[in-house]
Amino acid sequence: MEKNQFEALRELTERRDYRALRTALAEENEVDIAEFIEALPEEKATVAFRTLPKELAAEVFSNLPPETQQVIIMSVTDRELSAIVEDLFVDDAVDMLEELPANVVRRVLKNAHPDTRKLINQFLNYPENSVGSIMTAEFMDLKKSMTVEAAIKHIRRTGEESESIYTCYVTDASRRLEGVLTVKELLLAGDEEIVADLMETDLITAETTEDREEAVARMMKYDFITMPVVDRENRLVGIVTVDDVMDVMEEEATEDFEKMAAIAPSEKPYLKTSAFSLAKHRIVWLLVLMISGMITGGILGRYEAAFAAMPLLVTFIPMLTDTGGNAGSQSSTLIIRGMAVGEIGPRDFFKVLWKELRVSLMVGAALSAVNYVRLILMYPGNEMTALTVALALFVTVLLAKTIGGILPMAAKLVHADPAIMAAPLITTIVDAISLVVYFKIACALLPI
Amino acid sequence: MEKNQFEALRELTERRDYRALRTALAEENEVDIAEFIEALPEEKATVAFRTLPKELAAEVFSNLPPETQQVIIMSVTDRELSAIVEDLFVDDAVDMLEELPANVVRRVLKNAHPDTRKLINQFLNYPENSVGSIMTAEFMDLKKSMTVEAAIKHIRRTGEESESIYTCYVTDASRRLEGVLTVKELLLAGDEEIVADLMETDLITAETTEDREEAVARMMKYDFITMPVVDRENRLVGIVTVDDVMDVMEEEATEDFEKMAAIAPSEKPYLKTSAFSLAKHRIVWLLVLMISGMITGGILGRYEAAFAAMPLLVTFIPMLTDTGGNAGSQSSTLIIRGMAVGEIGPRDFFKVLWKELRVSLMVGAALSAVNYVRLILMYPGNEMTALTVALALFVTVLLAKTIGGILPMAAKLVHADPAIMAAPLITTIVDAISLVVYFKIACALLPI
Repeated sequence: MEKNQFEALRELTERRDYRALRTALAEENEVDIAEFIEALPEEKATVAFRTLPKELAAEVFSNLPPETQQVIIMSVTDRELSAIVEDLFVDDAVDMLEELPANVVRRVLKNAHPDTRKLINQFLNYPENSVGSIMTAEFMDLKKSMTVEAAIKHIRRTGEESESIYTCYVTDASRRLEGVLTVKELLLAGDEEIVADLMETDLITAETTEDREEAVARMMKYDFITMPVVDRENRLVGIVTVDDVMDVMEEEATEDFEKMAAIAPSEKPYLKTSAFSLAKHRIVWLLVLMISGMITGGILGRYEAAFAAMPLLVTFIPMLTDTGGNAGSQSSTLIIRGMAVGEIGPRDFFKVLWKELRVSLMVGAALSAVNYVRLILMYPGNEMTALTVALALFVTVLLAKTIGGILPMAAKLVHADPAIMAAPLITTIVDAISLVVYFKIACALLPI
Repeated sequence: MEKNQFEALRELTERRDYRALRTALAEENEVDIAEFIEALPEEKATVAFRTLPKELAAEVFSNLPPETQQVIIMSVTDRELSAIVEDLFVDDAVDMLEELPANVVRRVLKNAHPDTRKLINQFLNYPENSVGSIMTAEFMDLKKSMTVEAAIKHIRRTGEESESIYTCYVTDASRRLEGVLTVKELLLAGDEEIVADLMETDLITAETTEDREEAVARMMKYDFITMPVVDRENRLVGIVTVDDVMDVMEEEATEDFEKMAAIAPSEKPYLKTSAFSLAKHRIVWLLVLMISGMITGGILGRYEAAFAAMPLLVTFIPMLTDTGGNAGSQSSTLIIRGMAVGEIGPRDFFKVLWKELRVSLMVGAALSAVNYVRLILMYPGNEMTALTVALALFVTVLLAKTIGGILPMAAKLVHADPAIMAAPLITTIVDAISLVVYFKIACALLPI
């Protein structure tokens, strides 16, 4: 929506010209209307929402943030609320209920039709991150024996209630899934053809209890815009639609970013999370890593004599540990992401190891050479120090990249989350190792 | 596809029973067939591909990796090639040509129909990462004056050539976009209704030269499965479909992961990239950061006297710099990701600053307290050293989180890529600052 349209709508609300507001809002997209209502003060938001024509109200409602939904639920009549709940698609209703406080949830469920209430309760029971928790109950089903003409008629008569009509599902008497057929295939076929002859029977489905990430990966692989969800007895219970897939993809990527930065994942957007809650999500890993950092410090303590005798050695520590950490996290990031998008699997363990070894040899050699030349130029006469630093750097890069490449895969093999094996942990591990290597080489080559 | 089906198909290929292979393949999904052909040795791959029925060949072809596409292009006849190219959707053909070597591209273009060739060339000219480079030329268009009945007939007659028929576009005589209408809306309307009365005229479009990431964000916001693409004169030139959106989302997230780990982004999957090319993508940033690490070392050099007098101070350096780096990259990761998904904008600068300040006060206080207690217990009598470390840690966390939160936003304000301001760079900056702070406090509090 353009800024001036937004202003015009605001003005109509200020002037309480609700008839004009109603007409103007009916022209807009539901996402834009939701944005407009969200930006209004509380009392105004409810009034503006009530001017919406009935068929638009549920759509706008499902696009509002939980806080505004709550305000509206608490201020409309039972009858209005009931109409909204019945018009929402079950997955949107469930999304909403998961965010609202208990008293508001009670009010919503009280005003839902018994069938709707049962369905909502069933959906609320699916485990978090399962396919069941993101699926939609409303889909288009056809029977095997229908002709194309009858099927199209059936869709035209009953399509209103389905979130997506573009993929139709063919079920038998006991709701077991027998085939799928797209509306495109139906429309392109002749009127007299039979659904059974047109439908695809090589079915790719998801199960209600399956992890949603796996189901989404499968939908992406096959470029599906919907995928059928079945229960253990292969009965069709719902569908996953592409808009849910996009939301899941975005959420899963965000979760990986958070984990890889040593933050406990949070569901809420940054700006809506309190400072206290942000601090809580960050402190656990910081503490764990700080204690690991202390262990590194302990290792360093054993070489106190060495750097008391030759303080110059200390000045190379930041360069050495930083480069090791960066080299290691480059590798771990590529491997973690490769596994997340399904390009790399546990079977590629040795391929990854071999590749990282070669990469680290090249990168290590180049960085060491640059460092050696720099040290020779800056500290003439200290050839052995230059050699020590260059050698330590080479070994550090080699170890960092190998560890960075292998640890995420090892995590996957023992069914842990590879995203934990990211920059922060890799850096801490590599720090400790590189310092031991550095001082061992220093003690061997230098007179300390 | 099940493993045993895969084996069965392989056996048919081995036995050269091409008739049975053809029948068996026709039952499978095109993505699975492509996977099967990809796994065959070169000569076998071409033979298996040629057994495919014509209508399946182009679909399977667009799912093959560039190497296998190249093998097939070079071994089929001109006539077969021409049939494949004409059956491919233009965006798939363009994706393919962008990956193939010049001699193979020439052979493909030579065998394309002049109109197709012109279209392909036009598409190849859109800038990388623009909307034009991911759009599809085949879409369904309707006229304003059509009745619903006529429109459905039109779709049934001409739908074969469109990649997506579910959103139809209404254009005037000079191809200017006037409205959109979904097939769902068409099917649910009465036969006699007129397209002009049903179509949505509040249009949300993309421009060919617009950044694809922005267009994709808009499609996600409105939950569109297709979006019209117009040129500068508002003439409809193509559509973006949801399968392209998902690919773009995945690619953009991967690119951010790479940039945030200080790797130059690469288009190819990890396992298919050579070790040399991987090394090349990693070394530039490692060099830059290594040189920055040297600057930190230089700063450290100024305090040689301090740690020669009190070597214990050195052992706290890894804990201090690691914690600072981790605290900073937690903040920068959340802000970078928040900006990438559109939750945080430049207008939120002060909100972010204020939030990070509060978070860092809490986190810094907690970590410092833990450290102070530990040091008092481990080094009794060294209260001032404990205080020095705890104070330095507190200031480090405070600065790290503030810098980590602000730098990505600053980058955005000057139109640089925020993803650069991630863990590696933040760590390097915070390292240098935290060491200065540490030794300044040490010099003030301790007798050195």
